[in-house]
Amino acid sequence: MNAPLPNEILRSIRPVPAAMLQALRDHFGDRCSTATSVCEQHGRDESAYPITPPEVVVFCESTDDVAAVVKLAEANAVPVIPYGVGSSLEGHTLAVQGGVCIDLGRMNRVLRVNPDDLTVTVQAGVTREQVNREIRDTGLFFPIDPGANASIGGMAATRASGTNAVRYGTMRENVLGLTVVTASGEVIQTGSRAKKSAAGYDLTRLFIGSEGTLGVMTEITLKLYPLPEAVSAAICTFPSIDAAVRTTIQIIQMGVPIARCELLDANAVRAVNQHSGLSLAEAPLLLMEFHGSESGVKEQAETVQDVAREFGGQDFQWASTPEERTKLWTARHKAYFAALQTRPGCRCQSSDTCVPISHLAESINESVAESEAAGIPYWIVGHVGDGNFHLSHLIDPNDPREAAVVEDLNVKMVRRAIRLQGTCTGEHGIGLHKMGYLVDEAGAGAVEMMKTIKRALDPKNIMNPGKVVAV
Amino acid sequence: MNAPLPNEILRSIRPVPAAMLQALRDHFGDRCSTATSVCEQHGRDESAYPITPPEVVVFCESTDDVAAVVKLAEANAVPVIPYGVGSSLEGHTLAVQGGVCIDLGRMNRVLRVNPDDLTVTVQAGVTREQVNREIRDTGLFFPIDPGANASIGGMAATRASGTNAVRYGTMRENVLGLTVVTASGEVIQTGSRAKKSAAGYDLTRLFIGSEGTLGVMTEITLKLYPLPEAVSAAICTFPSIDAAVRTTIQIIQMGVPIARCELLDANAVRAVNQHSGLSLAEAPLLLMEFHGSESGVKEQAETVQDVAREFGGQDFQWASTPEERTKLWTARHKAYFAALQTRPGCRCQSSDTCVPISHLAESINESVAESEAAGIPYWIVGHVGDGNFHLSHLIDPNDPREAAVVEDLNVKMVRRAIRLQGTCTGEHGIGLHKMGYLVDEAGAGAVEMMKTIKRALDPKNIMNPGKVVAV
Repeated sequence: MNAPLPNEILRSIRPVPAAMLQALRDHFGDRCSTATSVCEQHGRDESAYPITPPEVVVFCESTDDVAAVVKLAEANAVPVIPYGVGSSLEGHTLAVQGGVCIDLGRMNRVLRVNPDDLTVTVQAGVTREQVNREIRDTGLFFPIDPGANASIGGMAATRASGTNAVRYGTMRENVLGLTVVTASGEVIQTGSRAKKSAAGYDLTRLFIGSEGTLGVMTEITLKLYPLPEAVSAAICTFPSIDAAVRTTIQIIQMGVPIARCELLDANAVRAVNQHSGLSLAEAPLLLMEFHGSESGVKEQAETVQDVAREFGGQDFQWASTPEERTKLWTARHKAYFAALQTRPGCRCQSSDTCVPISHLAESINESVAESEAAGIPYWIVGHVGDGNFHLSHLIDPNDPREAAVVEDLNVKMVRRAIRLQGTCTGEHGIGLHKMGYLVDEAGAGAVEMMKTIKRALDPKNIMNPGKVVAV
Repeated sequence: MNAPLPNEILRSIRPVPAAMLQALRDHFGDRCSTATSVCEQHGRDESAYPITPPEVVVFCESTDDVAAVVKLAEANAVPVIPYGVGSSLEGHTLAVQGGVCIDLGRMNRVLRVNPDDLTVTVQAGVTREQVNREIRDTGLFFPIDPGANASIGGMAATRASGTNAVRYGTMRENVLGLTVVTASGEVIQTGSRAKKSAAGYDLTRLFIGSEGTLGVMTEITLKLYPLPEAVSAAICTFPSIDAAVRTTIQIIQMGVPIARCELLDANAVRAVNQHSGLSLAEAPLLLMEFHGSESGVKEQAETVQDVAREFGGQDFQWASTPEERTKLWTARHKAYFAALQTRPGCRCQSSDTCVPISHLAESINESVAESEAAGIPYWIVGHVGDGNFHLSHLIDPNDPREAAVVEDLNVKMVRRAIRLQGTCTGEHGIGLHKMGYLVDEAGAGAVEMMKTIKRALDPKNIMNPGKVVAV
């Protein structure tokens, strides 16, 4: 069973007028499709919601293409939903009011690389792996890694982060400027290639995380970083989640510039062991990576070992060769599929909260106790250096009770995160699923301000309507 | 002679009604003042504009105080101008439409320090030096240093940065959450204490850099950083500005996590020598600082020396003791006063552009050539790691021609920065002075979007009206 659409956003289609459909066909030819298979493919993401297709999909190849679609949509008050690779997790790309899906996948050109300035400008449909492939010979890299090979546009739209964020920040910190098609179909630039600016309102940051509800980002200028001279990874097992978190807090307080610091709970380790043929101790584990000079990495490693030992860490294992590192990180990245296989036929429901790190252990431990009591299989991975973790439950798709129990666990976890001065989503975004939680977190006044901005910038409510804030 | 107010923002007073004035007096007693001296003191900043006083000044001590003032102002459509310490540089705090100045200087409490989370929450009137004094025993520090001992509220409002930004970022990256009094006098929270979030529109970043035109920030949660185990500073002289910039580019490309990288031109060095009794070679100079472990700092220093040598750098001098470092940085921070003394009776007009670092040498060199041709004394300091520099001219206050010539040089410099994909202001903000440049930089469409946001969030145009964007 899929999750139903929340009541407050029941589907209310705004049909695409025949004349507009004809205009799209005239303009885009076979890059405009109303085929059921195409529309259904664009009417889902990685969430549990049922397929909710748009009426038509247009494959855009340029900013001008996007502007042309939006102008038609604006004239006809028809919804526009930008679409990258469909890897969002909270229903972001579902066409809950029908309309036109703009597929940006063919906007896949890296436009300008500026190695001296550590910047690259890409079209929105370029994926993060493609960026790194195309700039490989510059000695630079783009660090943000949400797991999925998402499009840069999608990552910007959801303010994505992932494993490297503890050192390199999130999309919030790593986008310098944008080309945006506004809700009226106008093309604007935000930001510049300067590393900083005090010039006017921060429109760039307003679009980052707006999930397509204020305009369509078509070109994005990103910060790049030098590839570290040396990289080393390590794993260390802890007697408790609390010990792993205390270790992390102290590492960060000591100023160790750790590049990745991932927590796996015993359930996740067990699944990884089975799936990848490893024999890691089935206890809470930190998987860490260090970037720097040869001696810097060595020094970081020694510091971290000392700290970990203090908190009962053991079984330290190092991976300095690329092959060993790849093996460890592949195991981490496969944790999802590994866990899925522990309960054949199940589907996975992943949560995403982020709290001040001093409250992380409490936050995780209380969720664990609730999941244990509920008796539904679960596992945890966490970007623990940022206070962000994902609790995933394995649900029998034929038992609607389990989905309800897990949603109840999710509600408890989100409320706890908010009570502990954290957020209902560290990196997955609001989409459809978390609109109510956003109000709990930000308060009615702040959400009303978001709605005021939405109404002002998109008076006909055509940009990905029914997401983030309902207006 | 002071610079005149730009024509497009000629003063148009909106009087404070007698009943509102009485209501303020009833509510605030002697914390409400209409004394000429008090109003004039609040009607200026560090810009060259003439004193432009508000009609009344209210000394607020709490968020509720601020909300009470704004509610009255909203009901009467009277302007509200937030005021920290008055160190802004582009006319930000001038009461061009009269109204009420909210002095936040008494909101000077550090509210919550959370060492485990590396966060601190302060009232907006706390100064940056006070923050660092009050958290000294935690082993943490707040790095943003714009030179002046500005208030945290003012720094957030202008998106300030300064010497440490090359490593630690600007106010954009270092504010986690805000308490804001909106234009209707409502109190909202933005962000949280979580290190990252994907929850809704980034209202925090919308207020950062909005210069009091969208609301009044009253409480601010900041990121803190561990005090480095070791700090070392160095100076190095270069044959040309180009050589100093090429050195900086290579240092950054190699991933050296340099904490400060300041350029002084030969004129600035000459002034500093005279003022501080130093004998530095009167040539372009980089003043650098390294933060890290003992061995990390040593390694950074060696790498930088190698790079500098490659570009003709010489006279490397190290300062590892706090005393030696203080001497160097004091000289840097006194460069302004040192330069002022080279032309007695003059006043200083400072500019502020920021470009992609690959264009920095070109940008500086062309400005130097123009200033040389104009024959007006000048000097340059630059946060060169960020591509940001300040060209300051020493003007005879009795010669209106000189002010006009310097404004013309400023126009050329700003146009060049924009042409080179940079910004008209790296850190000083728009205020009154750069409103026209903002349009040149961002384009009419983006500025129209800013105006739309301004109108939506402040429909009566009471929040610091006539600044950033004129609506």
